Amino acid sequence: MSAKIRLYVEHPLGQGQSVPLTREQAHYLFGVMRLGVGGGVALFNGRDGEWQAEVAEAGKRGGALICRHQSRPLQMPPDLWLLFAPIKKARTDFIVEKAAEMGAARIVPVQTDFTNAERIRQDRLQAHAVEAAEQCGGTYVPEVGDLIRLDRMLTDWQGGRQLMFCDEAEAGRASALTSGPAGAPWAILIGPEGGFSPDERVRLAGLDFAHTVSLGPRILRADTAAVAAMTLWQQAMGDWR
Amino acid sequence: MSAKIRLYVEHPLGQGQSVPLTREQAHYLFGVMRLGVGGGVALFNGRDGEWQAEVAEAGKRGGALICRHQSRPLQMPPDLWLLFAPIKKARTDFIVEKAAEMGAARIVPVQTDFTNAERIRQDRLQAHAVEAAEQCGGTYVPEVGDLIRLDRMLTDWQGGRQLMFCDEAEAGRASALTSGPAGAPWAILIGPEGGFSPDERVRLAGLDFAHTVSLGPRILRADTAAVAAMTLWQQAMGDWR
Repeated sequence: MSAKIRLYVEHPLGQGQSVPLTREQAHYLFGVMRLGVGGGVALFNGRDGEWQAEVAEAGKRGGALICRHQSRPLQMPPDLWLLFAPIKKARTDFIVEKAAEMGAARIVPVQTDFTNAERIRQDRLQAHAVEAAEQCGGTYVPEVGDLIRLDRMLTDWQGGRQLMFCDEAEAGRASALTSGPAGAPWAILIGPEGGFSPDERVRLAGLDFAHTVSLGPRILRADTAAVAAMTLWQQAMGDWR
Repeated sequence: MSAKIRLYVEHPLGQGQSVPLTREQAHYLFGVMRLGVGGGVALFNGRDGEWQAEVAEAGKRGGALICRHQSRPLQMPPDLWLLFAPIKKARTDFIVEKAAEMGAARIVPVQTDFTNAERIRQDRLQAHAVEAAEQCGGTYVPEVGDLIRLDRMLTDWQGGRQLMFCDEAEAGRASALTSGPAGAPWAILIGPEGGFSPDERVRLAGLDFAHTVSLGPRILRADTAAVAAMTLWQQAMGDWR
């Protein structure tokens, strides 16, 4: 029997391990979800898999859970990064949620020539990634990076990572995803509304690790494009195979 | 040169055709977008392709456009229906928007055993589909159907349409989309939160036109699942090939 409530914690998890709760977690479990002593919660911390735990102490300002048994091993996503240009708040939140559900290992907001955002709330986006991982049954939470300029990121590119470049100027061509070196890490790059600048497109076209991919004949919003691109990648090279 | 503003109208479009504007459209073009006489607008009506038009009369309560030349022929999407169980308002709106962007020909809200919604606002959902078509450059607007019970829909199923059934109980198996008869029309079925009932799953498994497909090892929210499933289908059998 698995608990329906899934909670991300930072504490280590293991057989008989006691896990203290923050005030916020105690409020959620005991105030909102109305759990009492003996109630079941599934825990994960991104390192030790999923554990079925039981409420040992329940208070207004805190409490503790005891880990009973591991219900799922840690399942790491493939080494896929999602690079995206932050857009309006709700859709940016949405992209982070979707990236976590779709199994991105790392989420990187990038500032492109046509990106308006000057800053992001990294902590808020990270919280969205945690919530999505709690909801989708994942045992891993992707890390949300700080906002970085795309040109700097491309200059510092490392480790043979391949880049799937979703260019809306390609709308209408075949969406084939050419594969890079076997087993290479990958990143997907989704542009902002208005797409990429001519300079960026020239630069990307000249990079030997970049692969241009079309996402069909219609122009997709950035959030749609992120899910569609991750689907193509997961099916061709990731953990949907 | 193509106008940046795209507007869906119901009026026929053709060379030299005058197109009257509703009060709402006039408010949008002249009040919000600040267009004046001579300003350019791209028009489509779902039948005659996309036309570049020019403002001929601009008033507070109406106005008229004149069609100058066709900029894109009508591009019909493949014969793909998206069947989905309505969920919370924002996510239902989102699914309709995504279905239009991804090129569904028809969108059908279905009531399943685990669907809470008793009714939908068909007119509001249709307006979302129009807006998405305006935004994504499509020349076609998918029709949003009325809410229908899934069991009734399956009983009345017609015309050799194949059904891609996205079952979250399949999470973790291969996501291969087996193809049905060549050139057959298709539908994608996305369940509500909580998935399908045991009765529904038994029934669907026994239908010769139904094909079970997995959407990877994580459990996707319904809106994510809709985009992912349409991506798989469009790439395998639709207009992304």
